Amino acid sequence: MRYAVLGPGKRVRAALVYAAGLACAPHGRLDATQLKSLSLAASAVELIHAYSLVHDDLPCMDDDDMRRGRPTCHIQYGEAMALLAADALQPLAFQQLAQMPISPALIVQSIHVLSKAAGSLGMVGGQVIDVANVGNLLELSQLQQMHRMKTGAMIEGSVVLGAIALGANSEVRQSLDTYAAAIGLAFQVVDDILDVTADSQALGKTAGKDAQANKPTYVSIMGLDASRKFAEDLYQKAVDALLPLGQSAQRLRELADFIIRRHY
Amino acid sequence: MRYAVLGPGKRVRAALVYAAGLACAPHGRLDATQLKSLSLAASAVELIHAYSLVHDDLPCMDDDDMRRGRPTCHIQYGEAMALLAADALQPLAFQQLAQMPISPALIVQSIHVLSKAAGSLGMVGGQVIDVANVGNLLELSQLQQMHRMKTGAMIEGSVVLGAIALGANSEVRQSLDTYAAAIGLAFQVVDDILDVTADSQALGKTAGKDAQANKPTYVSIMGLDASRKFAEDLYQKAVDALLPLGQSAQRLRELADFIIRRHY
Repeated sequence: MRYAVLGPGKRVRAALVYAAGLACAPHGRLDATQLKSLSLAASAVELIHAYSLVHDDLPCMDDDDMRRGRPTCHIQYGEAMALLAADALQPLAFQQLAQMPISPALIVQSIHVLSKAAGSLGMVGGQVIDVANVGNLLELSQLQQMHRMKTGAMIEGSVVLGAIALGANSEVRQSLDTYAAAIGLAFQVVDDILDVTADSQALGKTAGKDAQANKPTYVSIMGLDASRKFAEDLYQKAVDALLPLGQSAQRLRELADFIIRRHY
Repeated sequence: MRYAVLGPGKRVRAALVYAAGLACAPHGRLDATQLKSLSLAASAVELIHAYSLVHDDLPCMDDDDMRRGRPTCHIQYGEAMALLAADALQPLAFQQLAQMPISPALIVQSIHVLSKAAGSLGMVGGQVIDVANVGNLLELSQLQQMHRMKTGAMIEGSVVLGAIALGANSEVRQSLDTYAAAIGLAFQVVDDILDVTADSQALGKTAGKDAQANKPTYVSIMGLDASRKFAEDLYQKAVDALLPLGQSAQRLRELADFIIRRHY
């Protein structure tokens, strides 16, 4: 479990939880209790993300030997142990949320958000569409639906959990939802672009893997230039959504920049 | 997900949730709201149980082709789909609890109970000890620890969740805890006995599998007769713990009888 979770990684989802919380804090300052809640919510999303990577790398899935520059979990510990270690990360994620020092009603809200984002209508559902369509030509709308679920749901969930942990009002939540939906989608577009433009070392995983596996990607459907333009439009949409939040949303702006404009 | 969850099965864990709830109800009667809570909690434990069976049957684990008299999930749908379907059952379980019509504080309690029972200190942790010790001779205390986690944790969790759903007081909770610990342990002892005494058809899975795999079992350590005596002692302990609860604990008594005295 430690190997799966504590290895090198960008921790984008954790950063989004913190940044969303910061955007909801009066004068952009967090007290110790708020930080504790955000840190538990950030752990929760990273635990879910980490488990999904371990299962994704298994021989029956992507069969990847390298992840974040290290042997994947099943290469290091064997398949059975990798499977189980990842399985145990899921309840741990929900336990983190249940420990947040906020009202039980807000905790219950957060459990709803994480369970939906991580489940069959979110991340895992997206992976199912992905696995079921290797070698198929998807329409752009189908590809978008897959990514909204596979990657977008947890990215959006991270932002929403940060807002819930701070008890944000519905107006702020709406700005954050728009921001989160845009970067959630952009995240995968950029991933697809990097899969064909970056080398394995920079990615920390095997580059060109998706193209090789004949998986549908934005680049394979829209081409490289249109994919870049699409990512840039989504960036603008995300940043515009943050306007009402003013200076306290600065970290979220920086993260949009990092996620969407990284490396290309 | 439906194939994994809705196939034939004894639903012992669900029955324990309902029976524990019934034991906590004044005059042994449940109103519609209480029934709804119990039904959601019962779903939650069965969803966790079902996911664990799917992963347990995978080639990298027990490599079982049959389960509950049908092809296992990965035989029917392929390994990748079985892995993912089971993965999606976990968040669904937590979502069930989050929907219970009880106070948010009790929901949060129930999330704690389920996440601990299903995680590395409970069910999955027990499976890890099991997998790591195939072919090893375990001491009785180690075997007991493994089963307390692997099977006992979720059996106990089921009883506790039924009590939480009904808002049981700490006195009642204590009786139920003792009952749950005894039948949780007994459940595995009986499983081990049945593995050597029953045939595959009666079990709904391949009999003699554990002995074949050289897995440590109560029978292999204590012998058959001492295992039966141990199961009977645990039955008595469980039933004695229910005495203070009177007639409303009748279903729990029947379940102890069903779980421990089944088929032998």
